[in-house]
Amino acid sequence: MSERSSFPFALPPLLVERAVAAALDEDLGMAGDITTQSIIPANARGEAAIVARQAGVVAGTDLAEAAFRALDPEVRFVRTVADGGMVAAGEPIATVAGKTRALLSAERTALNFLGRLSGIATLTASYVNAVAGTGARIACTRKTTPGLRAFEKYAVRAGGGINHRFGLYDAVLVKDNHIAAAGGLANALARLRTRGGHLVKIEVEVDTIDQLAEALRFAIDAVLLDNMDIETLRQAVKMVAGRVMTEASGGATLETVPEIAATGVDVISVGALTHSPRNLDSSLEWKR
Amino acid sequence: MSERSSFPFALPPLLVERAVAAALDEDLGMAGDITTQSIIPANARGEAAIVARQAGVVAGTDLAEAAFRALDPEVRFVRTVADGGMVAAGEPIATVAGKTRALLSAERTALNFLGRLSGIATLTASYVNAVAGTGARIACTRKTTPGLRAFEKYAVRAGGGINHRFGLYDAVLVKDNHIAAAGGLANALARLRTRGGHLVKIEVEVDTIDQLAEALRFAIDAVLLDNMDIETLRQAVKMVAGRVMTEASGGATLETVPEIAATGVDVISVGALTHSPRNLDSSLEWKR
Amino acid sequence: MSERSSFPFALPPLLVERAVAAALDEDLGMAGDITTQSIIPANARGEAAIVARQAGVVAGTDLAEAAFRALDPEVRFVRTVADGGMVAAGEPIATVAGKTRALLSAERTALNFLGRLSGIATLTASYVNAVAGTGARIACTRKTTPGLRAFEKYAVRAGGGINHRFGLYDAVLVKDNHIAAAGGLANALARLRTRGGHLVKIEVEVDTIDQLAEALRFAIDAVLLDNMDIETLRQAVKMVAGRVMTEASGGATLETVPEIAATGVDVISVGALTHSPRNLDSSLEWKR
Amino acid sequence: MSERSSFPFALPPLLVERAVAAALDEDLGMAGDITTQSIIPANARGEAAIVARQAGVVAGTDLAEAAFRALDPEVRFVRTVADGGMVAAGEPIATVAGKTRALLSAERTALNFLGRLSGIATLTASYVNAVAGTGARIACTRKTTPGLRAFEKYAVRAGGGINHRFGLYDAVLVKDNHIAAAGGLANALARLRTRGGHLVKIEVEVDTIDQLAEALRFAIDAVLLDNMDIETLRQAVKMVAGRVMTEASGGATLETVPEIAATGVDVISVGALTHSPRNLDSSLEWKR
Amino acid sequence: MSERSSFPFALPPLLVERAVAAALDEDLGMAGDITTQSIIPANARGEAAIVARQAGVVAGTDLAEAAFRALDPEVRFVRTVADGGMVAAGEPIATVAGKTRALLSAERTALNFLGRLSGIATLTASYVNAVAGTGARIACTRKTTPGLRAFEKYAVRAGGGINHRFGLYDAVLVKDNHIAAAGGLANALARLRTRGGHLVKIEVEVDTIDQLAEALRFAIDAVLLDNMDIETLRQAVKMVAGRVMTEASGGATLETVPEIAATGVDVISVGALTHSPRNLDSSLEWKR
Amino acid sequence: MSERSSFPFALPPLLVERAVAAALDEDLGMAGDITTQSIIPANARGEAAIVARQAGVVAGTDLAEAAFRALDPEVRFVRTVADGGMVAAGEPIATVAGKTRALLSAERTALNFLGRLSGIATLTASYVNAVAGTGARIACTRKTTPGLRAFEKYAVRAGGGINHRFGLYDAVLVKDNHIAAAGGLANALARLRTRGGHLVKIEVEVDTIDQLAEALRFAIDAVLLDNMDIETLRQAVKMVAGRVMTEASGGATLETVPEIAATGVDVISVGALTHSPRNLDSSLEWKR
Repeated sequence: MSERSSFPFALPPLLVERAVAAALDEDLGMAGDITTQSIIPANARGEAAIVARQAGVVAGTDLAEAAFRALDPEVRFVRTVADGGMVAAGEPIATVAGKTRALLSAERTALNFLGRLSGIATLTASYVNAVAGTGARIACTRKTTPGLRAFEKYAVRAGGGINHRFGLYDAVLVKDNHIAAAGGLANALARLRTRGGHLVKIEVEVDTIDQLAEALRFAIDAVLLDNMDIETLRQAVKMVAGRVMTEASGGATLETVPEIAATGVDVISVGALTHSPRNLDSSLEWKR
Repeated sequence: MSERSSFPFALPPLLVERAVAAALDEDLGMAGDITTQSIIPANARGEAAIVARQAGVVAGTDLAEAAFRALDPEVRFVRTVADGGMVAAGEPIATVAGKTRALLSAERTALNFLGRLSGIATLTASYVNAVAGTGARIACTRKTTPGLRAFEKYAVRAGGGINHRFGLYDAVLVKDNHIAAAGGLANALARLRTRGGHLVKIEVEVDTIDQLAEALRFAIDAVLLDNMDIETLRQAVKMVAGRVMTEASGGATLETVPEIAATGVDVISVGALTHSPRNLDSSLEWKR
Repeated sequence: MSERSSFPFALPPLLVERAVAAALDEDLGMAGDITTQSIIPANARGEAAIVARQAGVVAGTDLAEAAFRALDPEVRFVRTVADGGMVAAGEPIATVAGKTRALLSAERTALNFLGRLSGIATLTASYVNAVAGTGARIACTRKTTPGLRAFEKYAVRAGGGINHRFGLYDAVLVKDNHIAAAGGLANALARLRTRGGHLVKIEVEVDTIDQLAEALRFAIDAVLLDNMDIETLRQAVKMVAGRVMTEASGGATLETVPEIAATGVDVISVGALTHSPRNLDSSLEWKR
Repeated sequence: MSERSSFPFALPPLLVERAVAAALDEDLGMAGDITTQSIIPANARGEAAIVARQAGVVAGTDLAEAAFRALDPEVRFVRTVADGGMVAAGEPIATVAGKTRALLSAERTALNFLGRLSGIATLTASYVNAVAGTGARIACTRKTTPGLRAFEKYAVRAGGGINHRFGLYDAVLVKDNHIAAAGGLANALARLRTRGGHLVKIEVEVDTIDQLAEALRFAIDAVLLDNMDIETLRQAVKMVAGRVMTEASGGATLETVPEIAATGVDVISVGALTHSPRNLDSSLEWKR
Repeated sequence: MSERSSFPFALPPLLVERAVAAALDEDLGMAGDITTQSIIPANARGEAAIVARQAGVVAGTDLAEAAFRALDPEVRFVRTVADGGMVAAGEPIATVAGKTRALLSAERTALNFLGRLSGIATLTASYVNAVAGTGARIACTRKTTPGLRAFEKYAVRAGGGINHRFGLYDAVLVKDNHIAAAGGLANALARLRTRGGHLVKIEVEVDTIDQLAEALRFAIDAVLLDNMDIETLRQAVKMVAGRVMTEASGGATLETVPEIAATGVDVISVGALTHSPRNLDSSLEWKR
Repeated sequence: MSERSSFPFALPPLLVERAVAAALDEDLGMAGDITTQSIIPANARGEAAIVARQAGVVAGTDLAEAAFRALDPEVRFVRTVADGGMVAAGEPIATVAGKTRALLSAERTALNFLGRLSGIATLTASYVNAVAGTGARIACTRKTTPGLRAFEKYAVRAGGGINHRFGLYDAVLVKDNHIAAAGGLANALARLRTRGGHLVKIEVEVDTIDQLAEALRFAIDAVLLDNMDIETLRQAVKMVAGRVMTEASGGATLETVPEIAATGVDVISVGALTHSPRNLDSSLEWKR
């Protein structure tokens, strides 16, 4: 946890502000929180803690804070656990004090962000722990929730994982369709090289050892070893011999990932980190 | 399935357009799909099928179609299964034909929407099936993914569920905090009645039979029976005797939901439908 | 007025911010207030009062304040009358002190919001007063100014009225077209019940006593008595006998509304509250 | 009317699209028209006419059409009366044919735009008619509904009026505050001249004949004669003697405007055109 | 410079905020400044100066400040030179102190705005200086960078120039196409006068002395003398004799502009001010 | 030119649509093109050619087309030269036929995009030609016009150049500030490696041969040789010996760039490509 507490990344503040505004819009609509406005006096003040109901790795506290602050600019929000840190079941993640109306009306928005992102961070950490001691790193994919990619990729880092490319624009991944359309890998790579920037990496997807051998004839940066069994992965890593990055992709689970890591691959990409995490359950508990 | 094929709802088209634009922005950035543009000729055309890798209930085909159409306005998108319908593993959900570049570049965006919404519809349908034969209906909550509430609530309906309130603005839910702040339920409801519209329903959350008895003294529309055990639920339903809607909330799983339904409650709300569904796995398979 | 001063509602702050930004954009364009910038020194400071030229009920002070604050974040804005309170002709609604440029450039935007919303609140209060002593409540409709619905519905509440549904999404209103298309009211209601949420109210529009009798055979929440004359309204109220909410709709004016209220209906909806209010005239009077 | 049918102006299409999208958002929310979706089959088609319930001048048909088209891109919308043309009570403004769901769900949005803008055009035309035969033209002010200025200024033109400046950015209007801050009109105008563009007109507000005499010593384009009585206005017009544009401002009503026009002023500005028009009542009448 | 330090204009704050947000989005994307986040501690603080590498006129400091402030709301930004003021090569324009991460990540955005706008102001000042002593003023055109018109027109004023119309909406410019379509200038002007506001100026473009003679028969405000040689310009100015504004347009360079000014024209418009300025080079120099 | 005519890239369509909408907003405001609307009949149709007044490389035709199409969806726009192709002075780039009003009102917006982007492409091509025969490639920087980065980076590719990183998010560039803050390059790179994705390249900026030697001790992808003289560059290239990409940065002009290229560097980055291009002059010439 000491290492995680030094988690260096922060979300771009404008992204946080916009995502929180969009989420509050969904919950407040045109009339706002009609229950709370009707019943709670405008000047009432309260204090509460966001308490984890399960152990996990925290991510998304900036979003939670921004949700409360959007409804009460004077709110006091104090983190007990920073993003990337671990929380035990029953322990607080943060305390929040301010206008009671703001706390009640922003509660669900704050928890929805925190729950999803901490769920991703926690799941990522499970995979990272499962490969501890090997050299393998755990990466997410582009199978993210539409509209939340920046946040979900950040949560993966909070859980100790790394990010695969953010989109179709920041790295090249050559798949079988591309190779077929170009009439072979050589042609595909030639086309890429003519106009490609010098700071863009090129990864090639291969399904077989033969394809891998073909790919290694060219100046590329990484190979994506797609859906290979353990034995083939091992062979592939040996053939690559450290010349390019190796990424195992397809079907990794918490059960199978140690074995995959043991093959010596550099990176294991896991779509489930972002497409099917379980929410980290937490709740707002009132102190006064 | 015949019943589901008559699923009557459609997503507001402006919401679809905006969500798809936001998702494509995430994936295309400023440079677009650099692999595809470099390799695939601009005038190449192709055809592919979106094929389910697991059985499930489909939701989100409008979003998938819009993703392809945003990159190729002339694309031909034909549904094999409509939203609310069931698909078997290995069967196609839709076919899509158009510019190869558009198909490749919109693929992930289309599948990300379809996978998440179909996952929700499928999970909802499991709960609906689990309570079949009882009068209970399955409802979602406000524990939705920030930015996707309209779509996730729609997916719940596609799976045969119903929607709880959409936000804090369209129905009243009186919780313990409200009651405490008002100095009792009578006061809270009096405040609500002075200014509340005549088309807004009022639900009161109760934890115990005593609280329920208190709530039933007032003109309300529904009671949320919070985290009650089966025996208490049964008692509660009996006490209500059809005068107001009864909703069981808290901790329902696929294992426990039949028993909960058997208590006679009208509605069972399940946060996991939207906060922790598993993605319905599907892929784009190329025909030519 | 003491009751009104306890007006509990507040506009969602994000809606206020966006509406004020859009209005200032209209007035400032790309060059801003060219008269003021050319003539008034950037560091000049002033103080002024927003003074009502007519008596009325105030609404929209949050928008007025936000207009000044957008151009001078340090502005001091002090309400003399809160939203929902009454102001006499010649009396101040608020005082504002800050940069002279900001006061001059935001003046029209602030007054445009305040004039329209106070006009609605004042007109609503006239109707509310006209039915005082009966049990009838005054409701607005969906005949609002495009883009301002949230604010206009709020102004109706500030004037002592209640809101009909906010849109097509938060309550069901079954009209003759729907009944005809469904082949009768029974079918229409059956379709609604299959997928309708348990927190959505259902109102049925009826034109005649016969239609009312038909509607009352079903489990509905309210009836909209459309364009009925006073005698028919009275009969309708008697027939309903408190089983559902009764709403009189169509043609109510300040002259006819007392008589309508005297029939015993629960709610009288008045489109003119929002589609044809007269602006409440006010002006910025400079103190220094 | 023949003249009006040659009304040359059109609204910028992007403004129409955005305003209609915002208005539909208000009415459809996240769930859309739940009554219509539940009851009306998705493939049902219908035809209806937008019929005026009062005589008036039409404005806003582009917005009405866009509302229907947003929900059914194939809709057929045929104008009987173009913007700027007159409609009699009971006569159709346009017919619309398409998906029944789209017609029902867009109806209120279309009518809200049409009612407000036609109300403004009709009121403007009353003023224009009231000054017919004099040389005076009727102008609107900046007292417009926030967010709708482009449309309301357009409606004024549709009614035969002209537009005063659109905002603080496109013409200079020197008021008493500016003169006081500058230490006299000479200083104020000197400051304006240093940096003012050669295509920006300068108008000076005067309250008295003395102020007018002072203003006429400078090279300005127009004088705003503020709240002058008829006799003073007459004197002012005589003193100006055609050298600059004369604008009478303040307190014009349909009763007083002919007398004001008879003084010989060039322009009479009327805030009520846009801040307090009555909606032109119209409704959607179904043909099938 | 003393005159310039009294530059009276300011950019509308909402435009500044939005433009800076859009520019930061381009540079930060979804992951932010990955180099800085990985290496620089979140709590490190620094101080730097924005130093001009060339002499010039400064414009855009509000945008530069806003860029830093968006990433560190507590940043201290102190101008050494205000917009409209001159800076010598090697001298500071402003100093900025705050979080090191914010300074590094906003640096390029701040300098990009400052460089472009100061480049425009500097080029404008060169033209203004080149015509010093004549009565001619230097104006920009609508040949601005898409999305930056408000800022570029402002920079022209900062350099001592004036603005031509901001768009197609705030002044009339009748060109040969319009005259041809109307069947002559008389018709074109008649059409303009019927509906044109009294605060909109009318300029007519003429290519020849004959066209000028024709134009001067009508009540217009200005003539644009298009691509005339020096001798023809001189003739044109003489013929106009002060009755309307004269604007020389087409082909002015720093070399030719003094001669053009000497013809006595009131305004010389120069497209290159905004379409082809050279960036004013500046850099961020770290103090600690 | 045959090679350029095979230019493979296209702009993301949503970016084109938004940029054009923003630019048209600037030019049309709330009233639109008041000259054209007043004079040109709504149903008039015309045809024109966009003709280059100078030779150059074309870029931005998609934006030009979209500008016309936004005002007339039926417009016919035919390219004579595709993006990346060369045009001679006096030759057409495209022809456009449609509503005369749309052609006149969109003309400036279309030409502003085309002029700026073609100016960048043309300047880039000059640099590319100047280094022809060497292995050096010409790259742009992040010194782009705020809001137009996607388009300007595209124009650089159209001119035969390559793109440096798009922003701070898609590649790592370690500068002296980072190294100082980390306490040496080794520390800085260690921090990057812990959390950096496997598809992100790392470039290190060096000012001296000593720094270069230090940098080459680590696993990096590229070195930025900052402001080195020709002799030092040559030495640097020799020392690198092909192990990493070499980029020369700082002060390259059309005069100096051949000599820089001759040192054997892989990439030469030129800020002026995007911060100070000259507009490529073109105009709309009417055919009828």
